[in-house]
Amino acid sequence: MNLTITDVRLTPILVADPPLLNTQGVHQPYTPRLIVEVVTADGVTGVGETYGDTKYLELARPFAERLKGRRVSDLGGLFTVADQVTVDASRVENAVDVGGLRGVQTADKLRLSVVSGFEVACLDALGKALGLPVHALLGGKVRDAVEYSAYLFYKWADHPAGVACEKDDWGAAVDPAGVVEQARRFTERYGFTSFKLKGGVFPPDEEIAAIKALAEAFPGHPLRLDPNGAWSVETSLKVAQELGDVLEYLEDPTLGTPGMAEVAERTGVPLATNMCVTTFAEIKEAFTKNAVQVVLSDHHYWGGLRNTQQLAAVCRTFGVGVSMHSNTHLGISLAAMTHVAATVPDLHHACDSHYPWQSEDVLTERLTFEGGKVTVSDAPGLGVELDRDRLAELHQRWLDDAGALRDRDDAAAMRVADPEWVTPSMPRW
Amino acid sequence: MNLTITDVRLTPILVADPPLLNTQGVHQPYTPRLIVEVVTADGVTGVGETYGDTKYLELARPFAERLKGRRVSDLGGLFTVADQVTVDASRVENAVDVGGLRGVQTADKLRLSVVSGFEVACLDALGKALGLPVHALLGGKVRDAVEYSAYLFYKWADHPAGVACEKDDWGAAVDPAGVVEQARRFTERYGFTSFKLKGGVFPPDEEIAAIKALAEAFPGHPLRLDPNGAWSVETSLKVAQELGDVLEYLEDPTLGTPGMAEVAERTGVPLATNMCVTTFAEIKEAFTKNAVQVVLSDHHYWGGLRNTQQLAAVCRTFGVGVSMHSNTHLGISLAAMTHVAATVPDLHHACDSHYPWQSEDVLTERLTFEGGKVTVSDAPGLGVELDRDRLAELHQRWLDDAGALRDRDDAAAMRVADPEWVTPSMPRW
Repeated sequence: MNLTITDVRLTPILVADPPLLNTQGVHQPYTPRLIVEVVTADGVTGVGETYGDTKYLELARPFAERLKGRRVSDLGGLFTVADQVTVDASRVENAVDVGGLRGVQTADKLRLSVVSGFEVACLDALGKALGLPVHALLGGKVRDAVEYSAYLFYKWADHPAGVACEKDDWGAAVDPAGVVEQARRFTERYGFTSFKLKGGVFPPDEEIAAIKALAEAFPGHPLRLDPNGAWSVETSLKVAQELGDVLEYLEDPTLGTPGMAEVAERTGVPLATNMCVTTFAEIKEAFTKNAVQVVLSDHHYWGGLRNTQQLAAVCRTFGVGVSMHSNTHLGISLAAMTHVAATVPDLHHACDSHYPWQSEDVLTERLTFEGGKVTVSDAPGLGVELDRDRLAELHQRWLDDAGALRDRDDAAAMRVADPEWVTPSMPRW
Repeated sequence: MNLTITDVRLTPILVADPPLLNTQGVHQPYTPRLIVEVVTADGVTGVGETYGDTKYLELARPFAERLKGRRVSDLGGLFTVADQVTVDASRVENAVDVGGLRGVQTADKLRLSVVSGFEVACLDALGKALGLPVHALLGGKVRDAVEYSAYLFYKWADHPAGVACEKDDWGAAVDPAGVVEQARRFTERYGFTSFKLKGGVFPPDEEIAAIKALAEAFPGHPLRLDPNGAWSVETSLKVAQELGDVLEYLEDPTLGTPGMAEVAERTGVPLATNMCVTTFAEIKEAFTKNAVQVVLSDHHYWGGLRNTQQLAAVCRTFGVGVSMHSNTHLGISLAAMTHVAATVPDLHHACDSHYPWQSEDVLTERLTFEGGKVTVSDAPGLGVELDRDRLAELHQRWLDDAGALRDRDDAAAMRVADPEWVTPSMPRW
């Protein structure tokens, strides 16, 4: 068995995305992803997926070159390789990412986001070579299925007129009735039993009304609201007071650890985050100040599945809950999330996933939700298979793009509908 | 490939131990260890090693029964199994372990100490089955050799007269000159370049003198002193002041997190511990109070190699150093320590090991130190082979023992020489 990496393929693609609204704007008709393939000397191919914006691609290319000759089992070495790749500082602002709402942007975090795509690809290849599922390479599953929540969005029925795009069948959701209707379709199609609403789009009272409508329609079901830091501390507290009885947690009501700590101190509603704690460097201050009660890991920007396990260990040690964040992603990442989530002993909250919103994928067979859960695959590797024709089509779309969609920009998309739109300054309310 | 466990063998043994002194007494002539073997359906055998006192054996036996039918890759499941095994509470006092100086004793920690022996055995079997070294199963080594420190002890030349025992060739060390002479032999035999002295045996001034003699004999080399919590806060501060210039760190000068925190606050000398932080449950308070600057993991009581990696991640996240503690152990555990240490990215202190003091082992070939380092094995599994004849001999010694030595008791051993000896109350000075 030869585990040496002899080839690495990087395929940037554009995938269709519905007109989902958030506090910074609206999703563009297509969003970039990067598909990573590593090939071993024995001809085993492993696949991974990560963010596909230009700054990630620019880092992934030199990274990929350095991987040849290394072994797919050398996962710790990926971080050593990452440290050797220079990051163009002008590409990384130490600020909230306007496109992805992914928290602080640093060179290290950019590196980790790239590492994650390669780490998952290496794990997939290693698992296939050894005949073991990825979860077994991570120490073994402690559950047979992973629960996900319905990820509700305010959305338009269509992207702004004049934009080439795929039509989705979800219709509009811009008020409480629309949100409840969307939730019903989520339960009918996928069996989800907990619900997260992406907020920060409408004034807080409207979003409070939407959550109350959900609570009425689905009594007793866990509910979450995530305005992506759009509120002041006082507004956050007001919402917490209004919704305290029905919320499982409030996600990133306000920006920054000090603000979150103040909200946490003054309300009994647990706070979750994928914005103020998105790197290991941010943990100490946040945990010491009890600023967050649940950390939502995104294995992409935490640096892969093993780092996600380590994050879970840190959280467990400090009595902080852990679950999973999701940005627009395809089936490879859903499979990766499912494998790692299956190994985390104390996963007490359903994970987030955008996957139901993605009508397109690069797999021969889509992953499915049953009863809101994804079954943990016991097939070697991730248990997914790349559809090369589909990959080529989505890559062709990326090649054909003039450049406007190669970097996700929700504010730019909003300006198509509203030329006056500017990214709101925070707190918005 | 069938990774199912079809057989588990537990072999308690007694191994020769020199008359090493510590604050609670002296090592007995023989110390108990438990050798664990797991056998897969394919006939692959993996070996592990853990504490062998009766309370560990009593837990290991029902644990072993529950392992049959599970897979060696199911490492996370070991903790689930451990939770199912009842611990006799009367066997576990919530107090410092008098025999092992292993910090707080809880049922959970006892379980984890047992898990570790099985986890290492499963990793060894899994590695052999897959053709991968254990470090590769842990994410891959980031160094090719692991540095250890010379573990200096005050010792007598012989065990008390009238006790059946093996004779060692180290001679006595009961004063600064003896300690320096012992250190010289350690460097000559094994090439160690850093030194740890087990203290808490003589009044602090005598131990200060020993460290100063070491500093003079080995200028610039890292030095450590570990009195196992025998000092008051004030005494700890006095020693820190006297030795601040030459110490790499002071290990457990005083008992308990509040005392350690007070010492840490009032001195610039880093504090290390394997007594006040020995479980994940103890971390939050200690780290929040900045009570310790280096945690010394003992993979046995932290629950194995993967938990040690998680501990390292927690330490890294909070800016706390990590290294490895050692209690009396054989080559299986040294191999296990070396594999996991090879994967920890920021291991800035040489690890401790009693191994040079153990003249007996159960391996066909002893591990060796060169330049103070153990080379990381790339052979499948741990890279060690059990000597079954030797194992049988040491097990026979355990069988022949009337019971007096099956539970380590340093105070009892001291009473052979000094019938008036009682375990000192802490702080001793």
